[in-house]
Amino acid sequence: MKAVVYTGATKISIEERPKPAILKPTDAIVKLLHTTICGTDLHILQGHVTTCTPGRIIGHEGVGLIDELGPGVAGNFTVGQTVLISCITSCGTCHYCRKAIPSQCEDGGWILGNKIDGTQAEYVRIPHAGFSLHALPAETTLDPQVAVTLSDTVPTAYECGILNGRIRPGASVAIIGTGPIGLMSLQMARGLFGPAMTVVVGRGQPRIETAKAMGADHAFSVLDGVDAVVSRALALTKGRGFDVVIEAVGNAESFELSQGLVGAGGTIASLGVFGESCALHLEDLWHRNICLRTRLVDAVSTPDLLRMVESGGIDPRFLVSHRFTSDNFHGAYEAFGNSSKHGALKVVVTMQERSTNGSTNGSQ
Amino acid sequence: MKAVVYTGATKISIEERPKPAILKPTDAIVKLLHTTICGTDLHILQGHVTTCTPGRIIGHEGVGLIDELGPGVAGNFTVGQTVLISCITSCGTCHYCRKAIPSQCEDGGWILGNKIDGTQAEYVRIPHAGFSLHALPAETTLDPQVAVTLSDTVPTAYECGILNGRIRPGASVAIIGTGPIGLMSLQMARGLFGPAMTVVVGRGQPRIETAKAMGADHAFSVLDGVDAVVSRALALTKGRGFDVVIEAVGNAESFELSQGLVGAGGTIASLGVFGESCALHLEDLWHRNICLRTRLVDAVSTPDLLRMVESGGIDPRFLVSHRFTSDNFHGAYEAFGNSSKHGALKVVVTMQERSTNGSTNGSQ
Amino acid sequence: MKAVVYTGATKISIEERPKPAILKPTDAIVKLLHTTICGTDLHILQGHVTTCTPGRIIGHEGVGLIDELGPGVAGNFTVGQTVLISCITSCGTCHYCRKAIPSQCEDGGWILGNKIDGTQAEYVRIPHAGFSLHALPAETTLDPQVAVTLSDTVPTAYECGILNGRIRPGASVAIIGTGPIGLMSLQMARGLFGPAMTVVVGRGQPRIETAKAMGADHAFSVLDGVDAVVSRALALTKGRGFDVVIEAVGNAESFELSQGLVGAGGTIASLGVFGESCALHLEDLWHRNICLRTRLVDAVSTPDLLRMVESGGIDPRFLVSHRFTSDNFHGAYEAFGNSSKHGALKVVVTMQERSTNGSTNGSQ
Amino acid sequence: MKAVVYTGATKISIEERPKPAILKPTDAIVKLLHTTICGTDLHILQGHVTTCTPGRIIGHEGVGLIDELGPGVAGNFTVGQTVLISCITSCGTCHYCRKAIPSQCEDGGWILGNKIDGTQAEYVRIPHAGFSLHALPAETTLDPQVAVTLSDTVPTAYECGILNGRIRPGASVAIIGTGPIGLMSLQMARGLFGPAMTVVVGRGQPRIETAKAMGADHAFSVLDGVDAVVSRALALTKGRGFDVVIEAVGNAESFELSQGLVGAGGTIASLGVFGESCALHLEDLWHRNICLRTRLVDAVSTPDLLRMVESGGIDPRFLVSHRFTSDNFHGAYEAFGNSSKHGALKVVVTMQERSTNGSTNGSQ
Repeated sequence: MKAVVYTGATKISIEERPKPAILKPTDAIVKLLHTTICGTDLHILQGHVTTCTPGRIIGHEGVGLIDELGPGVAGNFTVGQTVLISCITSCGTCHYCRKAIPSQCEDGGWILGNKIDGTQAEYVRIPHAGFSLHALPAETTLDPQVAVTLSDTVPTAYECGILNGRIRPGASVAIIGTGPIGLMSLQMARGLFGPAMTVVVGRGQPRIETAKAMGADHAFSVLDGVDAVVSRALALTKGRGFDVVIEAVGNAESFELSQGLVGAGGTIASLGVFGESCALHLEDLWHRNICLRTRLVDAVSTPDLLRMVESGGIDPRFLVSHRFTSDNFHGAYEAFGNSSKHGALKVVVTMQERSTNGSTNGSQ
Repeated sequence: MKAVVYTGATKISIEERPKPAILKPTDAIVKLLHTTICGTDLHILQGHVTTCTPGRIIGHEGVGLIDELGPGVAGNFTVGQTVLISCITSCGTCHYCRKAIPSQCEDGGWILGNKIDGTQAEYVRIPHAGFSLHALPAETTLDPQVAVTLSDTVPTAYECGILNGRIRPGASVAIIGTGPIGLMSLQMARGLFGPAMTVVVGRGQPRIETAKAMGADHAFSVLDGVDAVVSRALALTKGRGFDVVIEAVGNAESFELSQGLVGAGGTIASLGVFGESCALHLEDLWHRNICLRTRLVDAVSTPDLLRMVESGGIDPRFLVSHRFTSDNFHGAYEAFGNSSKHGALKVVVTMQERSTNGSTNGSQ
Repeated sequence: MKAVVYTGATKISIEERPKPAILKPTDAIVKLLHTTICGTDLHILQGHVTTCTPGRIIGHEGVGLIDELGPGVAGNFTVGQTVLISCITSCGTCHYCRKAIPSQCEDGGWILGNKIDGTQAEYVRIPHAGFSLHALPAETTLDPQVAVTLSDTVPTAYECGILNGRIRPGASVAIIGTGPIGLMSLQMARGLFGPAMTVVVGRGQPRIETAKAMGADHAFSVLDGVDAVVSRALALTKGRGFDVVIEAVGNAESFELSQGLVGAGGTIASLGVFGESCALHLEDLWHRNICLRTRLVDAVSTPDLLRMVESGGIDPRFLVSHRFTSDNFHGAYEAFGNSSKHGALKVVVTMQERSTNGSTNGSQ
Repeated sequence: MKAVVYTGATKISIEERPKPAILKPTDAIVKLLHTTICGTDLHILQGHVTTCTPGRIIGHEGVGLIDELGPGVAGNFTVGQTVLISCITSCGTCHYCRKAIPSQCEDGGWILGNKIDGTQAEYVRIPHAGFSLHALPAETTLDPQVAVTLSDTVPTAYECGILNGRIRPGASVAIIGTGPIGLMSLQMARGLFGPAMTVVVGRGQPRIETAKAMGADHAFSVLDGVDAVVSRALALTKGRGFDVVIEAVGNAESFELSQGLVGAGGTIASLGVFGESCALHLEDLWHRNICLRTRLVDAVSTPDLLRMVESGGIDPRFLVSHRFTSDNFHGAYEAFGNSSKHGALKVVVTMQERSTNGSTNGSQ
């Protein structure tokens, strides 16, 4: 089969690999229908993810058909069924899985496309498939290409941003970052928790406009400087600061902003993928009763999120900005890697049948 | 001054009374602008509220102007300021107030129009005014006639229904009752908590249509029988039952319904004013992990609710179905007392200046 | 093998049965070392548990050795390992298991010794063994005979009583019932949550003395009448009532008591197994902000509880009042069935090797 | 009257000042019986607390007699009553007080001995006395000298350490710091929350021994180096790290330690008074689902704590290591300022009657 492989270089390599086989009774083999690219995949190509070694098939998101089921797979799965692949592998029984934090699973966690071969391929082996796959209802109105965003992006926004932020009705919420997760957090905050005010901090003007169009009450550009943004945003809260800050960028600047925006008694939900330590201004914060939470997505909310998508409570369709076919993975990486140039949010790649030789260019 | 007095008869009496005076340094005198009638006022007239004795000026809701302030009133109130009167009097410092349940306040609770003279009068004395009054912002867009609903109805729906129900995003919610509190609960559940499904159980067809128009996914009439409603509603949940049931009626039938509708692991928020004990089917419920909560409104959420109204998160305007002036309190009581005939939700009564002798009839 | 069978009569029957075999890849076969008798087993004999049909091997508690493991059993179990059998079978992946309420598991729940053959036998088949068994640490100081109490009694006291009661430091706690669960709740409340006062309501004097010896600040006998107990107990709380009431009996009288004892803002954790509906005094409780929770044990806390036993935080040894061997199941049922006569709490039955023909009488 | 005044120098000055008078109807004047010295008082003397200007009477802890009551003081206080002075002044009605975080009170917070004259004097004016004073029960067994520790130390340990740490039964808890708050946190963690293991990190050997004597399962000295302590402590948790870390020192080293000790899914309750920003290792923590909380004591738990002391659930007597009389404030400052030399925890100063000219030396 064809697969996207990390070779140690900064560019992906498309290689021919054998189809994976079931290794344990709790494994399943899934034939991919659609996959997508995550920011973490770009980090891998940069060599920043030391757990991912050259030769690895990358990718941890996807929708596919169950091709083969080990005899011990829990749940009611059947061969041929359409399933969503969770980015987090959960054994279900370890210390952490029993505490509902399978991101830390002792025999799983984020391993797909990292410590074991992943989803940017025609087939993928899914360990502990009973916990790591979710059936898509036969009668669903959910486009399978959109469903791919529920592998990682949507649960990350929900668990690491929204739930970790503990938004209460009437709260003031600041969201730092206008990537897929920042914008999805905005949609969820407004649609699911009744905040009194949402403020978004972005970088480029197009995304700031998108945030406003999605209902942000106010939006600022970090290009105006951290101090200016903090000062203008705080003025909207009578100087009190925000009840909830969702930090969805992951660098020193965004973390500085989050500390400037949080109010006394408030919460920072930090979901950025940080590469370095940051200054925590405890000299200001020690007496302000703040709470800071980090989280790698656990994907324990996926069943709830699927239900919310079905009921219309959330609508992730806007996330799919570009669509490619699998003969053009390079084009998909180009669009996603230069997302501001291409206006890309999530780039869905649809797997082609092997007999199909036609080429398709991505288009929105 | 003129006041609505409970005389022991089932009809109100309009009587002339002296203007109240400050008795303690923490009292304020408020000149009423608008008041309204609560279901509890009707219970008083029926003689069901034994703590309310003949001679009492009734009413515990209202918006007015501060006429006089005791020297020890907490907060930043000023004479002439427009204030919302909370139905709950809170001393702020007793065992219960410190636990944030001032409904049980040792020197307050529901005393206005019950144990002390109330708001259906030109003036009212408000004990512990610093805790029991809320300034309406000078620049507010909130119609003072609508603000009257925040004395009792809106915080009751929010605290006793919505918060006690612990609605989570994606939840299934059943609301029993289509009176002001039931309908307000519906609006809040949908607007503030992102349920996947809301089902309403009403009695008369007009209110059921109102519930549908307000966005209920399904609505049933209890006139079809408890068993039929339970059976049809459960079918919408794959037989699992509802995550949250808000019981907003307060009789044996509605309580029976609430037990039939609640799912395993679910919550019943019971906010009806019950006059008798009801059968609790512990033989079915002991192993179903349910939670039942009761609550007299504490009105601790009023500042949050005022902010939510300002931000548009909730909109109580639909509650004000009829408006009267104070020369026609009898008409107001007729409209509210026969609410199904008149299609009444909340009936606002605007106080007339004494010099005004004109008569105004209520209209929707 | 020998097994205790419910035949439809009120007495157990000891019958010869074939050793169970693995039916699904996620099954395990466990060779029992020790088992015990639950109050529910007596209910089965009375014909009160309609899901349990004649011919069933009863029992849902036990400690044993893994005899055989299906190929799909999750976790790191090995043949020969000593395991605790949970009274609740959990598939791990259904709607309810994902919500951490496996008592309601769609392919499990309380099925052992009820809907499928149970643990009062030489061998038992455990479905979904990865979730339903817990390894006992090799180096444990926990007596395996005592460990049997962690199948059901200890997690029931903890989850249905203690956790459902939401005890906070400084709380006043009333426990109704002095059976194994009531007494275990007393030990846990005092040892794990720092209440300011614990009050126990029992029936017979010996148990009341036991409760006092275990540290109850006050103890009353329900033989003095519900009203007298309520009146004396409330006096200890300045008339406010208790913050937490743990109802561990399960009849109309105990439920009446729990309503009389609960204070405004308080919680009733009802864990009794009720056979009939009870009167809920909503006419008194609707305005007192109370919370009532029921729960069938989910046994999700078992890993935590095993850790607490190891660390000495809880000590269930007192629960094992009588020990029998499996050639005297009739004696064990007699002791447990007439527990007040025999002073029985939990009656542990140790399985004898088939070749052993000696008879042993139970003794404390 | 005599008072301890901050003059801008690093030494206290004992000065003669006029007795304070009531300025607002909600003020009370309290005649001090006992006061004590807080670490923050030493910070003031170092010039680190910029809100405290020269000329200020310092001190924010104390027990005294009500000398005079403004007419608007809430609650049931009477002249002559013995009261505990809370270190936090709470207006009761502002945005923050209504959210139960009076540390941030818009007309209070930590102002005593900081922005207004404090308690190291014969008399002190207490604003918003109804919220900021707590009656000591007439029949209390609590030594008033010990009660002084409930002004600040005990609620700080409880709210900022214990409650912010969200300890659950069976948890592993690490406490960094063996000062009064660290040791009080140890006592409370063990007595109120049933942890499976407590580990303490101290500096000097005497305090480490004290921690062990108070029941710490393990104790380490930071003098062995952060890495060595982390490595040894983690080994006790199978490498998982601690569920709860209470950071009770407030410098870069202790904060580094707290990050090394916290386990995935764990909580750091940071209650140190930090003078500078610290490095937060988000590169390690972003994916470990941790929670960090800061808090200035709100003293909202004081009524609960008084009840717990009465019931014996907590026992703060060990905190009072030295006792002085008010003619020897310099000696008290010496003992507390060089606490490791003197083995001082809390140093209680008892006010002498003016007519008394005798001198008393402090003794343990």
